[in-house]
Amino acid sequence: MSDDSAVRPRPEAAVALRPASGGRVEGGFWGARQRVNREVTIPLGEERIRESGAFTNLELAGRGAGGEHQGKVFADSDVYKWLEAVAWERGRASGSPAPTAISDESLASSYGEAVKLVAGAQRTDGYLHTHTQLTGRERYSDLASSHELYCAGHLMQAAVAGSRATGDRSLLDVATRFADHLVKDLPADALDGHPEIETALAELYRETGTRPYLDLAARMVAGRGRELLPLKGHHGPGIRQDRVPVREATTVEGHAVRAMYLAAGAADVAVETADEGLLTALDRQWHDMVATKTYLTGGLGANWYGEAFGGHHELTPETAYCETCAAIGSVQWSWRMLLATGEPAYADLMERTLYNAVLPGVSLGGDRFFYVNALRVRAGANPDDRRAPARGRQDWYGTACCPPNVMRLLSSLDHYVATQNQDGIQLHLYAGGTVRAGEVVLEIETDYPWNGHVDIVVRETPGRPWALSARIPSWSDPSLAPAAPGSYHRIHRTWHPGDRITLDLGVRPRLTVAVPRLDVARGQVAVERGPLVYCLEQADHPGVVVDDLCVASPDLRDGPPLTGLPPDVVPIIARGRAHVHRQTDDGFPYRTATTPRAPDHTGTADLTFIPYYTWANRGVGPMTIWTPMH
Amino acid sequence: MSDDSAVRPRPEAAVALRPASGGRVEGGFWGARQRVNREVTIPLGEERIRESGAFTNLELAGRGAGGEHQGKVFADSDVYKWLEAVAWERGRASGSPAPTAISDESLASSYGEAVKLVAGAQRTDGYLHTHTQLTGRERYSDLASSHELYCAGHLMQAAVAGSRATGDRSLLDVATRFADHLVKDLPADALDGHPEIETALAELYRETGTRPYLDLAARMVAGRGRELLPLKGHHGPGIRQDRVPVREATTVEGHAVRAMYLAAGAADVAVETADEGLLTALDRQWHDMVATKTYLTGGLGANWYGEAFGGHHELTPETAYCETCAAIGSVQWSWRMLLATGEPAYADLMERTLYNAVLPGVSLGGDRFFYVNALRVRAGANPDDRRAPARGRQDWYGTACCPPNVMRLLSSLDHYVATQNQDGIQLHLYAGGTVRAGEVVLEIETDYPWNGHVDIVVRETPGRPWALSARIPSWSDPSLAPAAPGSYHRIHRTWHPGDRITLDLGVRPRLTVAVPRLDVARGQVAVERGPLVYCLEQADHPGVVVDDLCVASPDLRDGPPLTGLPPDVVPIIARGRAHVHRQTDDGFPYRTATTPRAPDHTGTADLTFIPYYTWANRGVGPMTIWTPMH
Repeated sequence: MSDDSAVRPRPEAAVALRPASGGRVEGGFWGARQRVNREVTIPLGEERIRESGAFTNLELAGRGAGGEHQGKVFADSDVYKWLEAVAWERGRASGSPAPTAISDESLASSYGEAVKLVAGAQRTDGYLHTHTQLTGRERYSDLASSHELYCAGHLMQAAVAGSRATGDRSLLDVATRFADHLVKDLPADALDGHPEIETALAELYRETGTRPYLDLAARMVAGRGRELLPLKGHHGPGIRQDRVPVREATTVEGHAVRAMYLAAGAADVAVETADEGLLTALDRQWHDMVATKTYLTGGLGANWYGEAFGGHHELTPETAYCETCAAIGSVQWSWRMLLATGEPAYADLMERTLYNAVLPGVSLGGDRFFYVNALRVRAGANPDDRRAPARGRQDWYGTACCPPNVMRLLSSLDHYVATQNQDGIQLHLYAGGTVRAGEVVLEIETDYPWNGHVDIVVRETPGRPWALSARIPSWSDPSLAPAAPGSYHRIHRTWHPGDRITLDLGVRPRLTVAVPRLDVARGQVAVERGPLVYCLEQADHPGVVVDDLCVASPDLRDGPPLTGLPPDVVPIIARGRAHVHRQTDDGFPYRTATTPRAPDHTGTADLTFIPYYTWANRGVGPMTIWTPMH
Repeated sequence: MSDDSAVRPRPEAAVALRPASGGRVEGGFWGARQRVNREVTIPLGEERIRESGAFTNLELAGRGAGGEHQGKVFADSDVYKWLEAVAWERGRASGSPAPTAISDESLASSYGEAVKLVAGAQRTDGYLHTHTQLTGRERYSDLASSHELYCAGHLMQAAVAGSRATGDRSLLDVATRFADHLVKDLPADALDGHPEIETALAELYRETGTRPYLDLAARMVAGRGRELLPLKGHHGPGIRQDRVPVREATTVEGHAVRAMYLAAGAADVAVETADEGLLTALDRQWHDMVATKTYLTGGLGANWYGEAFGGHHELTPETAYCETCAAIGSVQWSWRMLLATGEPAYADLMERTLYNAVLPGVSLGGDRFFYVNALRVRAGANPDDRRAPARGRQDWYGTACCPPNVMRLLSSLDHYVATQNQDGIQLHLYAGGTVRAGEVVLEIETDYPWNGHVDIVVRETPGRPWALSARIPSWSDPSLAPAAPGSYHRIHRTWHPGDRITLDLGVRPRLTVAVPRLDVARGQVAVERGPLVYCLEQADHPGVVVDDLCVASPDLRDGPPLTGLPPDVVPIIARGRAHVHRQTDDGFPYRTATTPRAPDHTGTADLTFIPYYTWANRGVGPMTIWTPMH
């Protein structure tokens, strides 16, 4: 059986589940997103990366005659992440029955040209980092900031993708030369300020079987938290994941993307070395993150300052950083924890994060991107930052980490749908298409997430019995769901081709509230439906400012399609009203009161909630996920 | 009459009020703070500044033989702000009947030595900026970041203070040489990334009568908002006050300290050039700031990222930046607007800001400092920043702008108490001591802010009638106050020595709520008493986490003195209870609910509120200004 999975534990790894990645997503919600990704986002990415000078950097480094480096120190990684997306896309394309507007040939040609540039830029000893090469800075002399190993990591991930998806080993040769160099020549104790290489080295080990790659990854994971990296600006060592050893940490902290990448790499090391202590530490951190540092959307990182996690329960909606990359890193970590443990909570967060923290990062058209994903944008929001959500999605960013990260995740989404083990097959995400695992082929038919009905049809099966386990999301309506929400519905039997299982996951609109310590949600509700978090957007509420809207009744109902959004998008209608913003409210906004006085309201009217991932596709204005309920 | 005021409009300036600054604060609340400032903070400042290398920088620059610059590009300004404090202190000391532990002589000697270093470092053409001189960077080649003119501004303010307080013109000579150089040689359109020189040049003009200084200030105020400064990091031009011309702006934005300093300078220019349009624009911005961007404490700046104002109503308690310097800048701007207009709202904000946003910046002992003043610190707050409030006040900072800024404000606080005009005398702040204005001498006797009774005794008066106007703070209890809160109580008559007026300003504990748009305060109350904002601190609530406390009753009462706080500090007691943090709250913190469910509570118990400025003086732990009321 072919296994092109983005994450592929070795046979001896201590995992509960193994990826079932021979299948593919086709049609439906995610199929449409993948099509846009292939036809719009990836070609546009190539163009933007070209404009940014990142290809030129490789070309100049290849000539070895010097030249001015363009863009950020990590510009190479934009190329690598885009290459990874193209690699997965080539793998998907090769089996595609319906040719898309972007031909397999054009993808292969783009890929080949870029790989040639990358290979050409590599030094004879295996080293590669165009910023270091072009500026003449000494290698590894500023690892806290240079992103040399961060870029190396993305190169390795792209190379593994190329090898797994199409058998094209051209980039893998570059990556292994680099990795061999690192194993041999990297100074002892060297750590990159931005983790990423740990998970990449582990995967390169998985692909090649070269154990020293894993050992180096393990050394780097173990080396963090000893304050070896120099401090940066006003930040303490936590910002670079260097305050507390991974094995001792009880929570996640610092730069959210770095935290997620490091945790993913640590999880890889833990399962490949059967390090239960490390896995337990990661499990503890993950649960603390979920309980105290995760936005309703699954978004991570409360602080713009340092692009970092805040303290416990510091989850302010409008200043949420929730970098798209952090959400992608969260999916990567959760997937690894799911493989390691088989616990459904990991899949729950993955799904929440995919729909509500990754997907908002790209426009419905696939051509504009959010770096920061706020849960609220106010009237009078401050637009004075090129990443400010109030400015809407942008064409591209000077720091362009997020767009190609979305590309590579969407191109490899097929790998995150299902797993297998001796018990049988586990379905974690619901997407139309095919699931292949060993001798089993399943076909999934569903309009999920708009509809909670999922048909699972057995197309091929061995004669012996096995268990189909289908995740029942924790938000499922217990009165409809076939098993307890937050568990797997397990059906063990002998299957026959043509067998059909129909699940009802209980997708219907619901109100969500938060624990008291989450004070920013006090007195407020959110609207959700299935895996989707909803929001109120200004576009649907002319004549009143979203900031003033309140939910007046717990009754929610599905609404008709909205102009300007795809016709399958289901809005939700609730009765609401608005605070009256009085003239006197334009003075000092605090007033003496013996007892708090309820504010004046308008009469009730319908409020229209839309899926959060669709916001800012009809212009940009005030938006909120949390709404007061009066 | 001597007029040593920190802000001294020219006789022809378009102002409604003029400072009455011949008097002094003695005893009482502010007298005690000034004593600590003189005896602890200023000597400690000299030591810390010496340790930082800032004096050495001046010495090296004076030798002209090069040498390594220590500290930040703006290190010179630490010396200048400290010098300004010493200058004011020398002026206050000279009239002091009770010699303090720090003798006038030692202050004079410190002052003289530092001025000698400064004068020695100055280039023959008047230029002075040790970082530029020692690094050899071209002058004015990086004004967006170099802080050359920012430092020049603080030099000028220190020089004006020296001249006014003691007649010592040694530093004034340095400042005018520099200013003459700038008038002559500064490139046209040159702007500093950090405003400050505008208000300094205006004051230097006031002190010297040299009109080109004012013209240069006016040119710089008019030059902003045209995107002339290069962009910085991810920030737009707003961060450096360069997005919208001052005359057109409707709100304050960007870096809060820069915004305040620029506004103060613009107000100086407006009154000295009788520019009504500019003053109107400033008035509009000030009112928008008060209505939408000011914390209950008077603190400014919601965002760590860029140390900046947030959008409208973006006033999150725990991530409040509220830099101590921004509060000081706010006092400076409000005072100038008060002089220009005579409107009591400006004095109201000044008082609120002094007690609750400036004063928390320094410990009760005068030896530790907050840079950032959060309104809430949670259990599990993130300490990974050297400015994080959760770490408590620090001895000093690498960027040490705040401590010497507090020093100079406290040393010149006497100047902000009262004003005069043709109508008579206006009292804006209540502090024990003497007020002198023309032929009038008043003595103020009060235990304010602990007690609302203020005795005003006429000591000297001309025979003709004049009006005494005493500000009735907007928070005053209308049933006690002698005039409408937020106005001046005006008594016009012929006065005689010995006349005594007794005011009752209605100081008693009260609950405060916020407008609905200020969603972070939704369902919550704050406790205030007179001009003081109170908070709950962990130290007074063993066995329960402050994060979980709620106010249960609107009844508040004064409590007995607390161990570890000065005996005059009046705590406030309220009935409260605590949310019960349940085991299940340690999972995903969001749950489905048809209708929001009230959380479980403990039984009631007393809560102890303390003045916010006294927090973190008995260890550091969770603290909050806003508390839910259930």
